[in-house]
Amino acid sequence: MSLYDAKVTSREPLPEKEAAWTKLVRINYQDPHDKSRTWESAERTTRPKGSDIDGVGIVAILDKPTGPEIILQKQFRPPVEKVTIEVPAGLIDAGETAEECAVRELKEETGYVGVASATSSIMFNDPGFCNTNLRMVHITVDMSLPENQNPKAELEDEEFIEVFHVPLADLFAQCEKFAAEGYAVDARVGTLAEGVELAKKFKL
Amino acid sequence: MSLYDAKVTSREPLPEKEAAWTKLVRINYQDPHDKSRTWESAERTTRPKGSDIDGVGIVAILDKPTGPEIILQKQFRPPVEKVTIEVPAGLIDAGETAEECAVRELKEETGYVGVASATSSIMFNDPGFCNTNLRMVHITVDMSLPENQNPKAELEDEEFIEVFHVPLADLFAQCEKFAAEGYAVDARVGTLAEGVELAKKFKL
Repeated sequence: MSLYDAKVTSREPLPEKEAAWTKLVRINYQDPHDKSRTWESAERTTRPKGSDIDGVGIVAILDKPTGPEIILQKQFRPPVEKVTIEVPAGLIDAGETAEECAVRELKEETGYVGVASATSSIMFNDPGFCNTNLRMVHITVDMSLPENQNPKAELEDEEFIEVFHVPLADLFAQCEKFAAEGYAVDARVGTLAEGVELAKKFKL
Repeated sequence: MSLYDAKVTSREPLPEKEAAWTKLVRINYQDPHDKSRTWESAERTTRPKGSDIDGVGIVAILDKPTGPEIILQKQFRPPVEKVTIEVPAGLIDAGETAEECAVRELKEETGYVGVASATSSIMFNDPGFCNTNLRMVHITVDMSLPENQNPKAELEDEEFIEVFHVPLADLFAQCEKFAAEGYAVDARVGTLAEGVELAKKFKL
């Protein structure tokens, strides 16, 4: 078995009555000139009641003597029909904080045990198209802990994830390389890399 | 008129037959263990035939003596029911390159005339949920040009956009401030800011 054996066999229109995880919404609104307009939005059906986010993205940094490395993962994503390069991430459970979700998902998806050190404000993935959003949670992974010596993911039956890490200083070049090889680079990974490059370029 | 006067009055289910800009798709695929599964995907209906992207995000940097500043904009986005903080962006027209789209959209949305200096590989906005994507195009704005002294946007009838710029070194703090004030921070802006902070923290 290999991630690269996965493939899409067909795509077909999905009637709204048969959609379980997604929905389309018509939004009626007043524009800034008080004119009535409509907008179309795609949404997840899974956001827990009372939660202001769908999930978390995880910036997990291994602080190595050779320089910081960021944990990334590969998985096949049917919507884009490719193996993606993503940060670990997950949907939030009811009653869970962003930090709890991030620590849990990192353990499940990568095996690493970490501590949340910082949490971003809410970020919206594509706010002209959908309402999906997340918080980025930064996690410190103490590599001296026995449980982080040989981390083992606890994946669900339908999850197929390969975990790896790359030097943070090299993230942009790695993204370009992955894209050239046919991977789909997630916007969080690619944009984080662009931010690192901008800081280097302008010596911020 | 003010962006802050815009408001959502109602949200309702959108039957797929009445959706013009969005659609839901059922994807049939073989997982890495060759097991048949289905996935739900939200998509734009507007991607031009032959184009591999929906649009572009624009990193437009004003290289000032006091330090680089990034052009941002505020607009009301019905899906998130808030005024967002975004980079200039736009959907690609048929036959247009990413760079042409970026130069055109920057001019239309902000009035600034610039030259594309670099283009990222494709980035996917939320690849477990939808197939929407973009390339980030970096644009250099020559502030000594007469046309950039008093830039005027050329907005369409339904576009309401306020343009501003912030020091790149200060982007993260600005994002936190905007979020605290009730703005919705777009993932490109917020993640770019996180990348800058990581580079500063680890002295990359």
